[in-house]
Amino acid sequence: MTPIHPVLLAGGSGTRLWPLSRKSYPKQFAQLTGPESLFQASARRLSGPGFAAPLVITAEPFRFIATEQLAGVEQAAQTVLIEPEGRNTAPAVLAAALWLAEREPEALVLAAPSDHVMPEPEAFRAAVAAAAPRAAEGALVTFGIAPTRAETGYGYLELAPEAEAGAETPQPLARFVEKPDAARAAEMAASGRHLWNAGIFLARADALRDAYARHAPEVLEGVAAALAGAEADLGFTRLSPEPWATLPDISIDYAVMEKAEDLAVMSYAGRWSDLGGWDAVWQEAGPDADGTVAGDGATAIDCRDTLLRAESGGQRIVGLGLEDIVAVAMPDAVLVAKKSEAQRVKEAVAALKAEGAAQAVQLPVDHRPWGSFESLVTGPRFQVKRIVVKPGAALSLQSHHHRAEHWIVVEGTAKVTIDDATQLVSENQSVYVPLGAVHRLENPGKLDVVLIEVQTGAYLGEDDITRYEDVYRRG
Amino acid sequence: MTPIHPVLLAGGSGTRLWPLSRKSYPKQFAQLTGPESLFQASARRLSGPGFAAPLVITAEPFRFIATEQLAGVEQAAQTVLIEPEGRNTAPAVLAAALWLAEREPEALVLAAPSDHVMPEPEAFRAAVAAAAPRAAEGALVTFGIAPTRAETGYGYLELAPEAEAGAETPQPLARFVEKPDAARAAEMAASGRHLWNAGIFLARADALRDAYARHAPEVLEGVAAALAGAEADLGFTRLSPEPWATLPDISIDYAVMEKAEDLAVMSYAGRWSDLGGWDAVWQEAGPDADGTVAGDGATAIDCRDTLLRAESGGQRIVGLGLEDIVAVAMPDAVLVAKKSEAQRVKEAVAALKAEGAAQAVQLPVDHRPWGSFESLVTGPRFQVKRIVVKPGAALSLQSHHHRAEHWIVVEGTAKVTIDDATQLVSENQSVYVPLGAVHRLENPGKLDVVLIEVQTGAYLGEDDITRYEDVYRRG
Repeated sequence: MTPIHPVLLAGGSGTRLWPLSRKSYPKQFAQLTGPESLFQASARRLSGPGFAAPLVITAEPFRFIATEQLAGVEQAAQTVLIEPEGRNTAPAVLAAALWLAEREPEALVLAAPSDHVMPEPEAFRAAVAAAAPRAAEGALVTFGIAPTRAETGYGYLELAPEAEAGAETPQPLARFVEKPDAARAAEMAASGRHLWNAGIFLARADALRDAYARHAPEVLEGVAAALAGAEADLGFTRLSPEPWATLPDISIDYAVMEKAEDLAVMSYAGRWSDLGGWDAVWQEAGPDADGTVAGDGATAIDCRDTLLRAESGGQRIVGLGLEDIVAVAMPDAVLVAKKSEAQRVKEAVAALKAEGAAQAVQLPVDHRPWGSFESLVTGPRFQVKRIVVKPGAALSLQSHHHRAEHWIVVEGTAKVTIDDATQLVSENQSVYVPLGAVHRLENPGKLDVVLIEVQTGAYLGEDDITRYEDVYRRG
Repeated sequence: MTPIHPVLLAGGSGTRLWPLSRKSYPKQFAQLTGPESLFQASARRLSGPGFAAPLVITAEPFRFIATEQLAGVEQAAQTVLIEPEGRNTAPAVLAAALWLAEREPEALVLAAPSDHVMPEPEAFRAAVAAAAPRAAEGALVTFGIAPTRAETGYGYLELAPEAEAGAETPQPLARFVEKPDAARAAEMAASGRHLWNAGIFLARADALRDAYARHAPEVLEGVAAALAGAEADLGFTRLSPEPWATLPDISIDYAVMEKAEDLAVMSYAGRWSDLGGWDAVWQEAGPDADGTVAGDGATAIDCRDTLLRAESGGQRIVGLGLEDIVAVAMPDAVLVAKKSEAQRVKEAVAALKAEGAAQAVQLPVDHRPWGSFESLVTGPRFQVKRIVVKPGAALSLQSHHHRAEHWIVVEGTAKVTIDDATQLVSENQSVYVPLGAVHRLENPGKLDVVLIEVQTGAYLGEDDITRYEDVYRRG
């Protein structure tokens, strides 16, 4: 059989799981349900026999997070498509489908959000395999989740009258149903003929292209132009911004699926959640008899219907006498919310943004193409950072006008260039970079380099940097 | 008039304000109500014209915190009495009274807890001045707070029938009343003849000694022996442990006051709170119209009857849709509790202690006689600390078996001795202390020295230290 090409949709930047998920490091990349991110779990779910390497579509600031996280699960993308700006799923899915159609028109595309949880990957791969023959015939196959409660937060898929409920093959789809009210949700959940719309599609690349041509020709035209003008850059496919800017902000459901002819739905009875808020995270984590979820570092005393999380290794959180509460602690930001109002977390983010608090959008750890850095402490004329440089990576050749830097290597071996001299600096050695010196930090080894940087000077902003050479082509 | 000698009782180590107050840094030294600690505010309240320098009585681990905090409000103690172990207020007050009686038998002693809040210091000093003449005549004058609510958490003082309620001079006291039930509290709060017992006493040193001699001779004997055997040590009076260990654990109320003859009570109508829990802190902070208190770094959205605190400069906390909640965030520990059950915080501390969590008893900042240090980050074979050395202070001459240290000075100028060489290291300079080297760090200047220490090695525990010389006489 022809392999299935996973398309991981990873451009979203929602705020409903703040403070763990922030604009600078959104939900799909966060470790919400275990040591793997949702993105990593998605990539692993759609891998193995029968699957090609994934395509990823994401936004500019997340491109290195995506490749780094794929590497963390021993994968590499066929390409990472970079959206110049978010335009919902219709343009994103099509961009990946067209990229594949150019290479193999009948390639099977499995487009899936990368920020959902499906804790039974084998069962889902079996469902995908069962759906593949219908997709290979040219149908657009969508996946529907057997509902376990009368949920008003999801859209539904209604089976056609002739469909066999719970069949192990794709069945005809009657229609897409919008998020319902409580009465209608109860009706549908009990009907046996309605499924939750998980936003996952399987189709041939050319069938998708043809469906857009019939139902959304303006999207096809814009995406085709953005792909034609795309720039290939270090394994990334940077879509052309000008045609992209003309595209409507529209979901693939609205643009294409609801109007398409040869539609089928594959029923999936395994566990699934879109983790659309802390209440969903609580539910998915499996509350104990009191309805309480207390993860590592969390202690619940006499709590009911409560979620307690401490996101940082050394941190502790204690809940005492709580009911219907979500509390999520990070070293720089803490959320305490009524759980039944957890959907309002975006109000918290908006309030912090209005106050100019960095925590509204940024995590303490800053991810860069070469690794990451984290500010440990800031004083009047100094700052201490922990810097991690990936094997083979290099920071730009640079200098600073206002600060000197002391580097102490605590793990690995760094190659350090200061003006005309280059030296290896290994664990427990230090080096001094005077103000104004042109310098570069590289990791020539096979293990991460971890170093402690102590900056001293009158101005310590990230923008005091003059770059002379940068393998990552930054300004 | 003879000056009044404040005796600040600062040995307590309660846990009801965890995580801000911990066993290693208890409530009286924490910044609960502003930039000054309660201890500092107490010292300033009992200073100025008419007051001698204070006596402090505290426990061994807090002695340098006490002297450092006094210095912070430009005070120095006559002496700091060190209790070998906590024995409640009867022995503590008497130890100070006897220390004074040896020097000036008729000295007026004002004994007061240092962990209460009285935000109107001038009014209280006026009450003390008004009470002084009766105390100088030999009476034991206690201070009673005019009740503002039917509080069941405090003991009460009942005016004698002949007393004039609300008088501006001390009045005869009928008796001490234990913490009442709700009905009795309501009755007393409304009576106009009952006051809250604030645990503050004014008396002549010899009158106190004589009262103990009559009513608690075993306490007098033990304390006198502990003082006779005391060791004077760098401005501290270290009471002799053996007689101290024989003393009963008893309050001055029970041991002496309730039985004494010449008792008077001075009524005080100003604000007072013992800040006996987070609910009291909430009340004292002045809730807004919704009953909410959100300090610096805290954002309340649609909250009622809620206290939100972020204790660290850079940290943020957001409350959303909360009611009757206390949430206190520190970088290493967070408490979220139902406010009306805030008295149960000790259960949280006990649970953490049972789990072996350092946060149960220790703050991230560790205070030492020479200054303080704080662990910023710990890795597999390294640790980064911020170290502050006070002007004129010196760490012990020491060496380590298992770690090397890099020091980068970021503020001030340090004097560093490594083996036989001594050098000055100033801002933006660094120095390396190899494994095994005998070294000393001193601050010869007039400003704090702040340095970043990066330790590397296989074992980084505090106990890997061999001390050769120590001006603070530690082992």
